[in-house]
Amino acid sequence: KVKSIGTTPEIRMKRLRRLIQAKPIVRILESHSGLTGLIAENAKINVNGKDIEFDGMWSSSLTDSTSKGKPDIEAVDTTTRMHGLNDTFECTTKPVIYDGDTGGKVEHFVFTVRTLERHGVSAIVIEDKTGLKKNSLFGTEVPQVQDSIDSFCAKIRAGKMAQVTADFMVIARIESLILGKTVDDALERADAYVKAGADGVMIHSKEKSGMDIKEFCKRFRKVDPNTPIVVVPSTFNHIPESEFEEWGVNVVIYANHMLRAAYPAMLNVAKSILLNGRSYEANDQCMPIKEILELIPGTK
Amino acid sequence: KVKSIGTTPEIRMKRLRRLIQAKPIVRILESHSGLTGLIAENAKINVNGKDIEFDGMWSSSLTDSTSKGKPDIEAVDTTTRMHGLNDTFECTTKPVIYDGDTGGKVEHFVFTVRTLERHGVSAIVIEDKTGLKKNSLFGTEVPQVQDSIDSFCAKIRAGKMAQVTADFMVIARIESLILGKTVDDALERADAYVKAGADGVMIHSKEKSGMDIKEFCKRFRKVDPNTPIVVVPSTFNHIPESEFEEWGVNVVIYANHMLRAAYPAMLNVAKSILLNGRSYEANDQCMPIKEILELIPGTK
Amino acid sequence: KVKSIGTTPEIRMKRLRRLIQAKPIVRILESHSGLTGLIAENAKINVNGKDIEFDGMWSSSLTDSTSKGKPDIEAVDTTTRMHGLNDTFECTTKPVIYDGDTGGKVEHFVFTVRTLERHGVSAIVIEDKTGLKKNSLFGTEVPQVQDSIDSFCAKIRAGKMAQVTADFMVIARIESLILGKTVDDALERADAYVKAGADGVMIHSKEKSGMDIKEFCKRFRKVDPNTPIVVVPSTFNHIPESEFEEWGVNVVIYANHMLRAAYPAMLNVAKSILLNGRSYEANDQCMPIKEILELIPGTK
Amino acid sequence: KVKSIGTTPEIRMKRLRRLIQAKPIVRILESHSGLTGLIAENAKINVNGKDIEFDGMWSSSLTDSTSKGKPDIEAVDTTTRMHGLNDTFECTTKPVIYDGDTGGKVEHFVFTVRTLERHGVSAIVIEDKTGLKKNSLFGTEVPQVQDSIDSFCAKIRAGKMAQVTADFMVIARIESLILGKTVDDALERADAYVKAGADGVMIHSKEKSGMDIKEFCKRFRKVDPNTPIVVVPSTFNHIPESEFEEWGVNVVIYANHMLRAAYPAMLNVAKSILLNGRSYEANDQCMPIKEILELIPGTK
Repeated sequence: KVKSIGTTPEIRMKRLRRLIQAKPIVRILESHSGLTGLIAENAKINVNGKDIEFDGMWSSSLTDSTSKGKPDIEAVDTTTRMHGLNDTFECTTKPVIYDGDTGGKVEHFVFTVRTLERHGVSAIVIEDKTGLKKNSLFGTEVPQVQDSIDSFCAKIRAGKMAQVTADFMVIARIESLILGKTVDDALERADAYVKAGADGVMIHSKEKSGMDIKEFCKRFRKVDPNTPIVVVPSTFNHIPESEFEEWGVNVVIYANHMLRAAYPAMLNVAKSILLNGRSYEANDQCMPIKEILELIPGTK
Repeated sequence: KVKSIGTTPEIRMKRLRRLIQAKPIVRILESHSGLTGLIAENAKINVNGKDIEFDGMWSSSLTDSTSKGKPDIEAVDTTTRMHGLNDTFECTTKPVIYDGDTGGKVEHFVFTVRTLERHGVSAIVIEDKTGLKKNSLFGTEVPQVQDSIDSFCAKIRAGKMAQVTADFMVIARIESLILGKTVDDALERADAYVKAGADGVMIHSKEKSGMDIKEFCKRFRKVDPNTPIVVVPSTFNHIPESEFEEWGVNVVIYANHMLRAAYPAMLNVAKSILLNGRSYEANDQCMPIKEILELIPGTK
Repeated sequence: KVKSIGTTPEIRMKRLRRLIQAKPIVRILESHSGLTGLIAENAKINVNGKDIEFDGMWSSSLTDSTSKGKPDIEAVDTTTRMHGLNDTFECTTKPVIYDGDTGGKVEHFVFTVRTLERHGVSAIVIEDKTGLKKNSLFGTEVPQVQDSIDSFCAKIRAGKMAQVTADFMVIARIESLILGKTVDDALERADAYVKAGADGVMIHSKEKSGMDIKEFCKRFRKVDPNTPIVVVPSTFNHIPESEFEEWGVNVVIYANHMLRAAYPAMLNVAKSILLNGRSYEANDQCMPIKEILELIPGTK
Repeated sequence: KVKSIGTTPEIRMKRLRRLIQAKPIVRILESHSGLTGLIAENAKINVNGKDIEFDGMWSSSLTDSTSKGKPDIEAVDTTTRMHGLNDTFECTTKPVIYDGDTGGKVEHFVFTVRTLERHGVSAIVIEDKTGLKKNSLFGTEVPQVQDSIDSFCAKIRAGKMAQVTADFMVIARIESLILGKTVDDALERADAYVKAGADGVMIHSKEKSGMDIKEFCKRFRKVDPNTPIVVVPSTFNHIPESEFEEWGVNVVIYANHMLRAAYPAMLNVAKSILLNGRSYEANDQCMPIKEILELIPGTK
């Protein structure tokens, strides 16, 4: 059963920095709706008397777009994404990291930063690519162009200048490994982006082993002991949080799993209904009516 | 793989009436997002060489509210519900039936009717209750007050007067059986609502057998051979469409199954991640990344 | 020329209470758009070396509705009103008082309170009427029903319970004088509403002299020296702020003047264009193009 | 007094083509809200027994941005602009032409076309510039880059392919004269854009005489007798519609006059209030309260 409790945008926003300071690993779950936000807020297991839960939400542009039936090419604009986030803000208290894609034009990015900050988002992640956004996991299958270091640093600086508080974070996502470049290239960029003001770096890869990520983290940590490192184990998801912790990673994002869990479950029930001319056979795949009615407090 | 093709609001709106005329049973699936709209649009099975699919979408206030983390008490307002519907309109072509709850105050209801009609919704269903909306499936567990026949007929008439085209439908939902009243009461109301201009009646019950629904349908059909009957087999879901057809039912709505399928699937994956410190163990419960990337055309 | 500077929702929200403490009279201007918000933010005159400006904005349901071409009967829902407020929040820093009409059903009101608070609104004003909202200035011309003291106090209490911070204000608007009742009745209600938790009272009247307002203020101040009094001099607008100050008033709201200024000016220009087949003759009534281009920083 | 009457998106959309066919000059007024839409819908004068009124509305990105307190650099995204248009659609019936700025990336433009068409917009105007949008009236004062003919034609073709009906219009705005290029260049582009599928051309200039516009129109009409020509007399506004008609112009857009009329009127009233400590002195500049209450039917 989920509970709605209150927070303010400022308390929520500041919470991410505090969690990164306080916890070995900050654990973030993709959310694309109020309800998935409630899962990130409330899902909890108890292992050996210790509660384990998520620390916050990832507002993914891939799952936001997909849940709206739109391709993941920044065709879902900021206002529409804020509508969805608004639902999440209404019913949760944990911090939110926002997937900002390329960040768009610098002149628009500064407005996005202030809009997010004002609503209580803790961080925006922007990736160092230009042109039409293409999902990173396509890698070199589709043409993708990396931004120049100078140009991307200018965007980071503009974002940091635009924010009103000291708390909001701009996290630079380095696409070098995605685009087939070297760890050296990624490290050079990481260094430049941090100098430009980035409050964290996200390193991403579609290599299954995760060994390029590991090399990046180990080498980055030697020269920069403090700047938070963020990873997104979608392809290299055999690596547990404990190992990321050893590498010096601060934030692990489970970036699209709620949508990837929901879609096949929904499709199966839809097909079961079509096959049987009734929903009876899908009873076990659906939560009981009584439970859905009681899921959100105040429904009764 | 889903496809996005085009339609106009007018073509979409008119399609429901045509389907009711042309088909023995019109099969409607709950949708609370663009993606669930795409399932209703594209899910298809082939039985003995014959394609079976859904005919349209049910914009449920219960699942719209729940997916936004809000209780089902009309706290999610019309504008917010239209945002969600807008996503569906952008990527589908099938007709939409809108769950209008009580319809609210008459003076507001007329605006809702015109807004829905203008966007290409085919029908609104309003229920004959007053006061704070409570989900029907609570039945007599929570205090619920039925509207007077006169007052509800006035609301139906106002809605019919407000619509611009001849195609938009106002469907009257009769809550007598939900509130423990008799089939006689339901029939009296059905008759009055149709005379007031209702383009269809929805009869609902929380009795598991469905026998009260059957009695209503059989008796209503004797006196009114044409007005469409709509049923929502949530509790009496062992009854197949073919049997509803025999009773004279025209539209069957699977009213909340997409959300009821999605939630437990998402929660399970979330808990698996918490338990294992990684998403690896949830691989089989999640659609492959490659597939999610290819789900919506244009993503690549 | 207008400037955009930053604030946070929390700083903005708290500012109204501080202003009421610090200033003899807090001066609030109606705003129904980002641009009218900028007028409230930036309009300034200098009298004898002293700058005079507005202290904040009034989000009026009358002018919000009218600017959207909708009647002032709560047909413009909360989500749509928040869209408009959002524009204002993006480009201003002064506090906002929200015209909450009747507040709606208690179960919905609690959500409205939290939504407003979260976005940084400082106060909501709700009026003690029930049924379909009708603008107060119609007075007894149209049927309007006042809420019972008990019922309205319950609504105030629910709102105060719902808010997360200590800063958000719920202001009770007393419609007794509008509805032809006595100052005694208004005072009885004021006392009850304050005891129920109201952070301020708004007293309203359509009598031109303003003498009933004066009597209310003088008598209320005798028994309650602290609770803020809010007045809206629409009909009794010959009374200057300095006089309200003497009566013990804390906040003066100019509740609809931006829209009332804009509409005739726009209509005149529209008619001039129609008459002359060109806009040339309206040059003097329109701000120069160069100025409109330079009105918002960043346009160039 | 304004009236709200009904239409459908399809009837509204088709109306612009019919008007262009039927009338010597189609007269379009800028609108940035429901209320300005109502002025375009209802303002009427009678000259020698003949009613003269506007034929439709121009959804201007300059005035939309300005009314939201944002610079005119496409920082107000499509979703937010659709919110505003939605208000207009709710209370008017006349056709709408949408200022699409550069149209953005081709991959996003196709979604915009379909969204507009679906809501009943008649035409989108896109201008042949690239990079960050800067208002045309800045001309060569700020750096602006014109798109190549090939690239812009590809955008036009993509838009025409995307639309679902035969009625929606894509109008190509030629910025050659704005950017200091020749009429020859403008004509070459006009020809190419029409061949690529443009349903009309808009020719724009910031030269005060309007003689470059005249030359373009006269020469274009010689080679293309049918394709609609659209002009926007902001700087050359001494030229009356009758003269544009002689040049072969089909549509005249008064592109920003409502906002330019409203702003100084509002600012003056705001300053009068500040100066006098009351609104009494601004009475004559404000429409009477009684009138604002009766402006929108249903308020009472």
